[in-house]
Amino acid sequence: MKLAVIGCGLLGGSTAAAWRACGSVQEVIAFDPDRAGLQRALDCGIVDSVADSLQQAVAAADCIVLAPPVGAMDAALQACARYGRLDAIITDVGSTKEGIVRSARAALGDSLARFVPAHPIAGGALPGVEHASAGLFSGRWLITTPLPQTDPQVLRQVEAIWAACGARVERMDPAEHDRLFATVSHLPHLLAYALVHQIAGDADGSRMLQFAGAGFRDFTRIAASEPTLWRDIALANRTALAQALSTYRDEVTALLTAVEQGNAAALDRIFSLSSQVRRRQPFDADTPAAHGATGASPMSRTS
Amino acid sequence: MKLAVIGCGLLGGSTAAAWRACGSVQEVIAFDPDRAGLQRALDCGIVDSVADSLQQAVAAADCIVLAPPVGAMDAALQACARYGRLDAIITDVGSTKEGIVRSARAALGDSLARFVPAHPIAGGALPGVEHASAGLFSGRWLITTPLPQTDPQVLRQVEAIWAACGARVERMDPAEHDRLFATVSHLPHLLAYALVHQIAGDADGSRMLQFAGAGFRDFTRIAASEPTLWRDIALANRTALAQALSTYRDEVTALLTAVEQGNAAALDRIFSLSSQVRRRQPFDADTPAAHGATGASPMSRTS
Repeated sequence: MKLAVIGCGLLGGSTAAAWRACGSVQEVIAFDPDRAGLQRALDCGIVDSVADSLQQAVAAADCIVLAPPVGAMDAALQACARYGRLDAIITDVGSTKEGIVRSARAALGDSLARFVPAHPIAGGALPGVEHASAGLFSGRWLITTPLPQTDPQVLRQVEAIWAACGARVERMDPAEHDRLFATVSHLPHLLAYALVHQIAGDADGSRMLQFAGAGFRDFTRIAASEPTLWRDIALANRTALAQALSTYRDEVTALLTAVEQGNAAALDRIFSLSSQVRRRQPFDADTPAAHGATGASPMSRTS
Repeated sequence: MKLAVIGCGLLGGSTAAAWRACGSVQEVIAFDPDRAGLQRALDCGIVDSVADSLQQAVAAADCIVLAPPVGAMDAALQACARYGRLDAIITDVGSTKEGIVRSARAALGDSLARFVPAHPIAGGALPGVEHASAGLFSGRWLITTPLPQTDPQVLRQVEAIWAACGARVERMDPAEHDRLFATVSHLPHLLAYALVHQIAGDADGSRMLQFAGAGFRDFTRIAASEPTLWRDIALANRTALAQALSTYRDEVTALLTAVEQGNAAALDRIFSLSSQVRRRQPFDADTPAAHGATGASPMSRTS
């Protein structure tokens, strides 16, 4: 199978590498307006050839993986419809799904049946194709959000490739996907940006950052993320994200009231429930700090 | 020098281990209502003897380190005043300083001059004396918040011990300390608890947690922290913390407005500034994920 990767950065490049490593593709062509990035992809053997245009890339492929930023997605979908082969599989790796499904419905026409909306939950590495890795998706979730029109055989084929790459595949409705990830992914990014923004606006901001410890470092790590990427995600998922932000503001108000009133019982209730829920969560890479109070002395302080 | 540790958990135990390792103390006695914890401290050689009472512990010591939870601090300070030697050095390792300074003023009388309020910025390990380590403070900040009454020689002596343990020592006003740490330590803990609390209250909460990725995991790691400890810290620092929470709520409102209005420029401004500030911060143990977009392709997605 010949794969065309549209947008050849960390995710596009890693997809090419992973799909090749599991034997699903034999040849990879890529298109990206960043010629230097394409050259790096060639240099590290992730792609076999580079296309001069979207048209050239999609015309040559049995399968097209769309990995551009949000703003370039419509043009990529239109190229798939116009120049893609009539049996080509089309899929994507985008963080939001309702918007891309809307765009796909508008752009793809008959090709919609061969489009599998997908989202690999993989990140945490440096961006750029030079950091791409065939192992990026191993043990990670891969969400598909098929449409009523999606060809079941094409869906199964895409899911089987991801499963062969070691991903855990789950299907969802696009709206459910966007609501879940609004809360556990997009919201935390905005909240981390907000805290750093607050500190940046404080007269003592530099001094605050000087003495910040490990908790702050972990909490705000995602505030170092690529700002335009997250701006686009926030806008693409604005309905679900606004709801999540509004609910979060209510949570902050409840905490503020409890702190102002010195309401120990209310704080206890919120902190204890959250602590229990968070400790129960079997995140693979948690540090020991995440697991709790067992062995704590009633006279001991831990931070 | 003979050291009495009041409250023998991770911090109290690590202080004893570090002060001994740097040659500042030759003998350690400890008191903690948790007898099993004291036995573990004896077993691992962190303390030489255990006291049956606060009185017995403080009466024997050249230096007293107070490391109990907030609720037990007043009794410990009173014991220092009543039973401590007239030349004993008294210091603490508490996360908030205005409250303890107030308690110390009320309890210590003439001993106030020999009290050095201190806060080692060290955490991230499992609680309990069995996880204590002499190296916990190496390369970490140690804040002292001396009072006008503090004997300069006693202050220098305590700071020299911490410096010998590898800590970077900085002096602050107690109010400044509490304001800085309200924002970079106490606030992030409350915000992480709030997000997990929101998810726990959502009908789809379990499903959200099931698919949460690395960003969420880092962001909420501190929500696994000991809830009663953070309840006490929040109450001890309620004035500064309420101010920080209120400002944060304004930040959330600004984000919510920008998302609802689809205001790309406003989101860009907030995210870009925060991302720059966060990337500039030289946190020792950041993963590569914290550092940026260099090498990112304009067509690439990174999460």
